[in-house]
Formats: sequence, structure tokens, C-alpha cells
Amino acid sequence: MPDEIDLALVCTPARLAPDVVRSCGKKGVKGALLLAGGFSEASEEGRILEEKTVAIAREYGVRLIGPNTNGLFSARLNCNAIAWFNIPRGPLALLGSSGNVILSILIEAQIHKYMGISTMLSVGNQCDIMFHEYLECLGTDAGTEVIILYIEGFKDARAFLSAARKVTPSKPIVMYLSGRSAEGKRAAKSHSGSLAGDYAVGSGALRQAGVVLVTQSDHMYPAAEALALVPPMRGRRVAVISEGGGVITVAAEALAARGLELAQLTPETQAKIHAIVPAASAISNPVDHGGGTDPRAEYYGSVAKAVLEDPNIDALMFVGFFGGYALRYGESVAATENAVCVELGEMMRKYGKPIMVQSHYAHFRTNALDILRRAGVPFQRHIEVAAQCLASIADYHESRRRMTTAAPAPAPVAAVSALIAKVRASGRFALLETEAREVLAASGVPVPESVLLRKPEEAAAAVKALGGGALALKVVSQDVLHKSDAGGVRLDVTGEQAVRDAAAGILHAVKTHTADARVDGVLAAPMAPRGVELIVGVARDPQYGQVIMFGLGGVFVEAIRDVVFRAVPVSRADAEEMLDEIKFKVMLDGMRGLPAVDKPAIVDLLVKISALAAAHPEIIEIDLNPVIAHGDGYTIADARMIIRQS
Amino acid sequence: MPDEIDLALVCTPARLAPDVVRSCGKKGVKGALLLAGGFSEASEEGRILEEKTVAIAREYGVRLIGPNTNGLFSARLNCNAIAWFNIPRGPLALLGSSGNVILSILIEAQIHKYMGISTMLSVGNQCDIMFHEYLECLGTDAGTEVIILYIEGFKDARAFLSAARKVTPSKPIVMYLSGRSAEGKRAAKSHSGSLAGDYAVGSGALRQAGVVLVTQSDHMYPAAEALALVPPMRGRRVAVISEGGGVITVAAEALAARGLELAQLTPETQAKIHAIVPAASAISNPVDHGGGTDPRAEYYGSVAKAVLEDPNIDALMFVGFFGGYALRYGESVAATENAVCVELGEMMRKYGKPIMVQSHYAHFRTNALDILRRAGVPFQRHIEVAAQCLASIADYHESRRRMTTAAPAPAPVAAVSALIAKVRASGRFALLETEAREVLAASGVPVPESVLLRKPEEAAAAVKALGGGALALKVVSQDVLHKSDAGGVRLDVTGEQAVRDAAAGILHAVKTHTADARVDGVLAAPMAPRGVELIVGVARDPQYGQVIMFGLGGVFVEAIRDVVFRAVPVSRADAEEMLDEIKFKVMLDGMRGLPAVDKPAIVDLLVKISALAAAHPEIIEIDLNPVIAHGDGYTIADARMIIRQS
Repeated sequence: MPDEIDLALVCTPARLAPDVVRSCGKKGVKGALLLAGGFSEASEEGRILEEKTVAIAREYGVRLIGPNTNGLFSARLNCNAIAWFNIPRGPLALLGSSGNVILSILIEAQIHKYMGISTMLSVGNQCDIMFHEYLECLGTDAGTEVIILYIEGFKDARAFLSAARKVTPSKPIVMYLSGRSAEGKRAAKSHSGSLAGDYAVGSGALRQAGVVLVTQSDHMYPAAEALALVPPMRGRRVAVISEGGGVITVAAEALAARGLELAQLTPETQAKIHAIVPAASAISNPVDHGGGTDPRAEYYGSVAKAVLEDPNIDALMFVGFFGGYALRYGESVAATENAVCVELGEMMRKYGKPIMVQSHYAHFRTNALDILRRAGVPFQRHIEVAAQCLASIADYHESRRRMTTAAPAPAPVAAVSALIAKVRASGRFALLETEAREVLAASGVPVPESVLLRKPEEAAAAVKALGGGALALKVVSQDVLHKSDAGGVRLDVTGEQAVRDAAAGILHAVKTHTADARVDGVLAAPMAPRGVELIVGVARDPQYGQVIMFGLGGVFVEAIRDVVFRAVPVSRADAEEMLDEIKFKVMLDGMRGLPAVDKPAIVDLLVKISALAAAHPEIIEIDLNPVIAHGDGYTIADARMIIRQS
Repeated sequence: MPDEIDLALVCTPARLAPDVVRSCGKKGVKGALLLAGGFSEASEEGRILEEKTVAIAREYGVRLIGPNTNGLFSARLNCNAIAWFNIPRGPLALLGSSGNVILSILIEAQIHKYMGISTMLSVGNQCDIMFHEYLECLGTDAGTEVIILYIEGFKDARAFLSAARKVTPSKPIVMYLSGRSAEGKRAAKSHSGSLAGDYAVGSGALRQAGVVLVTQSDHMYPAAEALALVPPMRGRRVAVISEGGGVITVAAEALAARGLELAQLTPETQAKIHAIVPAASAISNPVDHGGGTDPRAEYYGSVAKAVLEDPNIDALMFVGFFGGYALRYGESVAATENAVCVELGEMMRKYGKPIMVQSHYAHFRTNALDILRRAGVPFQRHIEVAAQCLASIADYHESRRRMTTAAPAPAPVAAVSALIAKVRASGRFALLETEAREVLAASGVPVPESVLLRKPEEAAAAVKALGGGALALKVVSQDVLHKSDAGGVRLDVTGEQAVRDAAAGILHAVKTHTADARVDGVLAAPMAPRGVELIVGVARDPQYGQVIMFGLGGVFVEAIRDVVFRAVPVSRADAEEMLDEIKFKVMLDGMRGLPAVDKPAIVDLLVKISALAAAHPEIIEIDLNPVIAHGDGYTIADARMIIRQS
């Protein structure tokens, strides 16, 4: 070929890929898109073939898309290398692990008619170019306003998180992430060879990076469309307007199920609404302006205005027949209904609050709904989908606000480095509890006072030093990992004699359990006051890297698994969100006579532990369990840390 | 009017209703439908007006529909008394608390085109005819096959449960019940004046009566349509077939989220599929017969046959492009695709297993999908909706199987009656723990042995009688309701001296706490072995009457609220379902060294407590908390009962 070639669309069977890519390289082709399957997703031979192809591409500087993809569409490049015609163009980019899911969303856009596609690509095996690189590219594409992602698994999740953090402040990312269930993980593995990863870890880290997650595939397109249209949502308070109840009740349930609030309208707003519709059935929130006998489309406009002016309201939702008044009641009401549709668009921009319309007539794309949509207001057929759109809008803008706070920059602590060096030198990888406490203290984390009894006879001094109250006693030994199982723990021991006996008992039990255990002594610390048992941990996730965990501790923790994750490092705002995200967060607010937890102190703990882990990545595991939270501060009742051998 | 009148459609304002109904009565009109609002839902005056209208109607024997309804449609009676034209006729009945929700479903039927309406009615204020009467009527209506119910609240929930139990064995009821959230409850109250009731109680009792509950309004119509079309589903094992992954992964997640299983196909089935499609990407389950390069619609038919023949599979789901092959690949594949559609209908009937098709092209109502639907196979646009349809089908047939087991008939126990009479005679309503234990024992419930110490000096005898192990000691006093708060409980007390001291301590503490408490003594019982703390209770729900509760007990119970309810009486099958329905049922299977719970024993306990409550409705509250469940049996560690004063 005489001209320069930007992209080669390689349609050959898999086995020919190396030769074709070499030819491309020799010609100076910049990129090649490999359609064929039969590579690493299929077999070990395929994996070897893929590696070979990549090696050749690297040799010649050819970038590869795929293999195992169904092509690429780019409006910006005017390039349609996918077997589909008449792709509607618009501001949505579709990127995913599956060509079929991407095409399904494309069909949605074709049905929908109002919002088209800027870029469309299924990444296939990501043998060269990976999700995060495509994402960075979409982040700078002027034609893309919102990005829809369908993800079965990452090859470099950490790089994706970085890319997402750069993109989400200016462009929403709406993502369906596989792996919520064992079945989904298995299917993803079988389909794209992806390891779906732990959903709880992934969803926490992605949300932290500003990604809007949806859990139904049919919510991707509607949420993205809404995000592309409406102004920012300042909080989660939604007003609902309808003519007639029932649908209002359903809307209230659907909003509540998605963490949105039906805030009370101010008395002033209620008075305004009463003046507009004296016969209204309800004027607080939701507003039911039914009650009269004739259809009055104009009420929607004037009531919407009153509601949008209310400072208690962050977004507005219509439910019911609006958008179909002309169809239902005849052409005589068409002019009024259409005028309200235009007004709604103007009001949305003027007041800077999202408006979402659920209309029973959405399927029919009535003239009124067409006008409404051209005025920039999204509409949906189903109440639950409309509610989900508002929830996604609220999630996105909450993320943007949260992301203005940065995590502290990692700053290694000399004392910690020294201690780790010492432990490494001794050939150990698990810190003794006394050492873990030193690391915590050096990181600015309050650690309860304690005394190490080298022998039971030191009980008297320990009791005196620790104030004479009830003590917890634990063996300190590098050879005893599960202290309780070895008889190495005694709780609630009071008085010299009892402490001496308990310490002796522990030492005896440990020696019985592990004959040659090297024992440093028995650590005595005051019993923590009663409180809420929490767990704080740091681990290295195979996909998302260093992550911090927060959740409920104690007996039920295994059954309940009420824990949330974030990528390290976390900001205060991230940590606050973690506290708010556990399922049974009501436990933090004082239950059954337990104190309301000192949340700022726990937030502080999370930020400090995250900073410690970020500055000292050689600590690969931290397990503070339980952290007993009080009304004022907390007690770290047990601390374990594991370091990586250098 | 010269002729007899069956139904008067009363369109007057509310205030004229009494006069109009009186006129109807004088003429011998059998029923009147009151459209107007402004009755009990609106105000106290309205309530009085409604009562007056009902009194007049009763006087003349006129039955009333409404008021505050938007009319009635009945295909059987050829009666359209609702302001809507061209209502498609078919086997679905729509009944609800809201005319608007009913009309929204009607619009769904108009869009859908394939399945219409037999009866349509919003019940309004149910001033005379109530939900259960309409339901009974629909139960005997030959034109109705499935009933869709939208319910904000019952006036007589107990009667509804009876009616539902009669209807559901032959006709599915698909219900959206309001009240899952505080917001939904408030909206329902404001809309229809309904008290939504406790959702957990209602959903448990309704499911027990065979009702299929959905929690999204947009699932009502699809689930009902599917239930009207497909054969029974014998279990929850679904096979998924597609060409190409991605959508398969989404389907796997959607099915798992709804408690459906992706069971393994037998090796024989896998061999059959391999023979049909040697290049298939996956042949176990899900089946991905993609992998070839050309569209092969015929694979759907032959693979479906192999899968339907598999004994491990209870239903089949297609996801992806099927139904749009002709649209996508051209008319050359139309004949094959259409033939497969016909075959699928035949196979569904032949193998007696539901088939559900999700097609990206559903919106376009392609020729293939039209043929498919006429062959009796339902299709949906969205994967999650299709999965929900299968879940509803599975729920319904599970209920039907369960309902073949009856609860035992109530049989009062003479000893219990006598004890209650004695307690009543003494003017008390709370049973002493000793009395509650007597009631349990008389009902055949194993009660741990115990000794009542009248004074601390009886400790020696008690310790001896109870085997010498650790004891739990509790005050027995009609004046001490909260024993722990009064210092009336000591646990884990071992040995004569300690028991004597503890008993004395209890008596002293109680006297200090409540000076004039009448104390019967201190009840001593052996400490229960370690186990899983459960709660079993009976209460009188204001809507659903006598209900039995089962769930997790212990410290976190308040935060977690992991409890389920059923109406009394329960069958063994009901009780088994209760154990299976709690969220953290994994706690019953052995966690953290706790034993796997003896489920048959707990089921037996639930059935016996239910039978006790049913036979002795004068016991209005039973609270067994905790019931400590062991690997073999259980220990009721605390029992409280309250009786109604006669």
C-alpha cells in the first residue's frame, strides 16, 4: 500500500496473527486490531501465540487492540471497524470486556434515539493496550462526555484506578463490574479468562476513584444519559411531583431503597403550592396535585418551579402521566403540556438542579416527551430506573466533592523503618504484638499502656503500673500465632495474686501446646471499657493492591462480613465514607446501651493506618481486631502485622 | 329506569353519595361504584360521610365499590366503567390500591400487545367490598389466569390471607406490597390513608399464603405474563444459553442475585452439546455456543433440546441476539430462526420446563419474536427482568409444593388452660418464668430441668439435683419484668457455696431495686452448652394477627434484625422455610467453632409454639430469647409469656 497506515484491522485466524503483525510492523503501521479469538482466553497454546504476537508488536512498535474483540468504532476518527451500521453519534463512550454487552447498549441507543455513541470498543484480551490506556484516551476525547464501562476483570487494576481518578472529576464513568456472585465470577472467567476479583474490594476502590457503579446491566445507559444531561446534584434530597398517588408511593420506596431522601419542603414552598393547587392531595413532599377533576398540565410547571426554589431540595422527579396528557386527554391540553416541557428545561438550568421525568408514556415518544428531551430533561418509562438515575447522579457528585480532599502524602517514619529492619534481620515476618504496638505508637496511633511480664513474679509491679484494675494478659511469642488456641490469653484478671497465677498459667499452657516456643513474656494491659467491636485491616489484594478494610468486628463478623474496602491511601473524606457505608452502621450510633462511637477518632485511625501502610509498603498485612470503639476514642485490643521479606 | 340495574356508576361529588346510594337502594340496584374522593382518605368529615353512606347501603343491601376509585373494567361482564378505551383483553386481572398504578400496568399491556386484561379495578377506600372479596371473585373467574395486585395496605389482612390461600394453588398472585421503607409507608398513608403495616411481617405471611412478591413495580407485568405462559418449575436450577459471553456473565449475576442456581449439566448433556457445536466456547452451564464465525441460529434449537433433556435443569434462559438474527444477519437466516422459535414452544410443553428468552431486539418485536411469543414463550428486553421472571416462577411453584403440607389443627391443652385460668385469677398478665416453663412442657417442648430455690439455703439440694455443674440463677418475681436490670440474674455459678451466695445476692439486689417486690424465689438451671443464639416469638400484629417470629438472637439482633415472620399456624414446611429465609442462615451451619444447628429440632419447636399459640389465642405474646441451639437439640434459656385479660 502506498499510503501511511494508522490502523490495521486483522481479520485472519489466530495462528496468522504473528505474521500479519510483523508485516504491519515492517510497513510502519501504528496499530493493529486483532479480531480473532483462540488466544490466551482459549488455551495454553493460545496464550503462547498471544505472547509471541505481542513480542513482535513490541519489536516494531505496533500497538495492539484485542485480540478476541469485535472491533472498534470512533466518531472522532470517523472509523467504523465494527460490523454494525448506522451507529448514532453522540457523547457516550462504550468500553468493555464484552463485545456483546457493548452491542446491547448500542441497540439501547438506537431504540432511545436521543443520545448516541462517540467511541465503542470491547477490549478483548488486553494483550497490549489495557483498560486504563483506553480510559485515559477517552478522558481527553472532546467528543466524549460520559463513559460506560462493562468490566469482567482488570489486567492492571491499580493503573485503572489512577486513570479513573484523573478522568472522573470532569467526566462521569458509569460501570457495571462483574463478580458480585460466585456464579458471575465463574462465568467471567469462562468468557474472557478474567479474574473478576473480590467485588467488595473492587467496588470500594472504584467508588473511591469516583466511578459510579450500577448493579443492573439495564441501568448503564439510562444513568449515563442522565449524567450527560443534568446539572450537578448537591445532596440526596429529592422532591417527587405527580397527579395522583400510588405511583408516588412506589417512587418513595424506590428512592429510599437507593439511599435518596424525600426531604420536607419548607412551609413557604408548601404555601406556594397550596396557592397554586388549593385542592392538592399532598403538598409537603411528595407533592400530589391531584384532587381536582380535570387534567391540569400547567400545575406541573408551576409546582416544579416552587419546588426547585426550595433550598431543601437537590433534585426533582415527576412520576405518572405527564408527557402523555395530550395522548390521554386530547389535543386541547397539548399546548400547555408542551410549554411546561420547554419550561422544565429552562428551570433545570436556571436553578441548577437535576430534573428526571418518569412517564407511563415514555415508550410512545410522545410529542411532549420529544420536546422535553430536546429541552435537555431525561425521561424514563419505569419508576425504579428513574430513581436509579437520580441515585447515580447523586453518587457521582458526592464522589466529586469527596475527591477534592486528598490523602496525606506518604511519609516514612524512621522508628518504623528501624523496627522493620530489626525484625527482618531476625528472620521473622510476623511482628510480635509488642513490636506492632511500637509501630502503631510511632505512627501517632494511641496504644493502650501495657507492661511485658518477663516472668509471673513481675505481676505486682505490672498491676501497680497499670492502675490496679482488671487486666488482659496475652503471651508474646514468635512461635505462637493463634494465642487463644494455645491457651495464651486470659481476660479480666484483677489483683496481684490472680495476675501472677494467670501469667504462670499462660506460660504453662503455651509450653504444653508448643514445647519449643520462644516466649518473650506475657503482655498485660488494662481491660478495655465496653464498646463497639470494630476491625481495621490492611491487606494486599491481588488485583487492587494495597487496600484498607473497615467493618464490624466480634463474634458475628464472619457470618455478616460487614466490611468495606478502599485503596491505600485514604483521605479523611474516604474514611468518613467507609464508616457510612457499612450495612449495620446503626451499630456505630449507640445500640443496646453501647456508646455512640467516636467517629472522628476512628476516621483518624483509618487515615493513620492507611498512611502507615502507604509509607511502609513492606508491611503487607495489618490486622487490628478488635478495635473497641468508645464514646471517646478507642482501644486497640489486638494488633498483628506481617512484613514482606526483602 | 324501567329495567333492573346491576351496577350504578356514581359520578357525583362525595357529599351527594348518601342520597344517590339511597335512591339505588330503593330501586333495588345490586351494587354502586363510587368514584369521588373526599371520604375517609381526606378528612374526619369525609370519614363520617363514608360511614353514613355505608350504613345506607347496608340498609338496602347495596354493595359498594370504592369510594375514591377510578372505576372498573370487566371483560367477563363486558363492562368498561373506567375512562380508558381499547383495553386489550386477556387472562391478567389487575387489582390495587391505586388507579394510577393499575393504569400504568394497563399501558404496559398496551405496549406489550400479547397479553391483555380480564378485570381491572382500584379498590379505593374499601368502605364495603374489600381486597379479599375481590380476590375470591377473581379466583372463580374463568377468564382470569394470573392476578396482579398493588397493595398499600389491608383493611382485613387476615381475611386476605385466607382468600389468597384458596386462590394461589390454582392461580398465581403477583404482588407489589408497599411499606418496605418509612418513606413508602408515609406516602401510602398520605395517598390512600392505608397503614402499610410491617413489611417483614406482611411479606412473610403473604409468601406463606402462596403470594409471589416483587419489589419493583416494573416486574409485576413481566412476572405475571411469564407465570401465565410457562409450565411449572420443579426447582431453582437454570441453564443459560447464548452465543458469546458477557451477557452470559450478566445473566449469571442476575440469576444468583435472585437465588437461582446455575447447575452443572451432566457429562452426557455436555457431550451432546460438544457434538452439536464442536467449537463452542463453553458447554457446561452457561452454554456459550459462540466460537464459530458465522451466525448459526439452529444451534439454539438443538442445544436447547439437549439442555431441556438434562435432569439437572429446571428452566432454560436465552440471552443475547436470538430473536434478531434475521434483522442482524439478513433474511437468509430468517427461516432457521423462525423454525427454532416454533420448536422452542413445542419443547417447552414436551419437557414441561419454563423457557425464558432475553433478546436485545425485544423492543423491535421482530418477526422471530412474534413467532416465539405465539408459540407460548415469553421474551424480555433486559437480562435482569428475564431473571426476575424465572425467580417469580420458581417462587410460585415452590409455594405450591410447600402448601401441600398443612399446619396441625389447633388442640387446646387442658394443663395450659388451667394454668392460664389460675394466672388470670391472680390478676396477672405476665407469666412467671416457672409458669412459662410449665406451659412449654405441657405443649411438648423440652424445657431444661430447673429447681426453684425459695431461699439461699436450698442451694445444696439444688446443686445436687442439677448434677453439680455450672448454674444460671434468675429471680422469679411477678414485680420484676427486667430481671437483669434489677440485678436478678447470675450466670455460670458453680458449687454450693457460690450458688448460695449468688442466690442471696440476687434476693438482696432485687429488694434494693424494687422494695416491695413479691419474690417467689430464685430459679436455678444448668448453664446451656455453647451454641447459636436464636429467638422465637409470637406476637399479635395489628394487621396480620397472630404471627410467629424466628431469627438470630444475641447481642447484634437489634442492629441486624435478621428475623422472619409467618402467620400462625405454621406447618413443618413453613418452619423449614423460615430457617432458610434468614439473611445470615450461614450461622445455622456451624461458624467459628459453633455447632451446626439441629434444624429439625428448631423446626419442631416452631411448629409446637405455633400450635400452642393457635390453640390458646389468649396467650398474646411469647418470647423465647435466647433459644440456644446445639448440634443436638436446643436449650430455651429464657421464656416470657403474656396473656390477655379475659
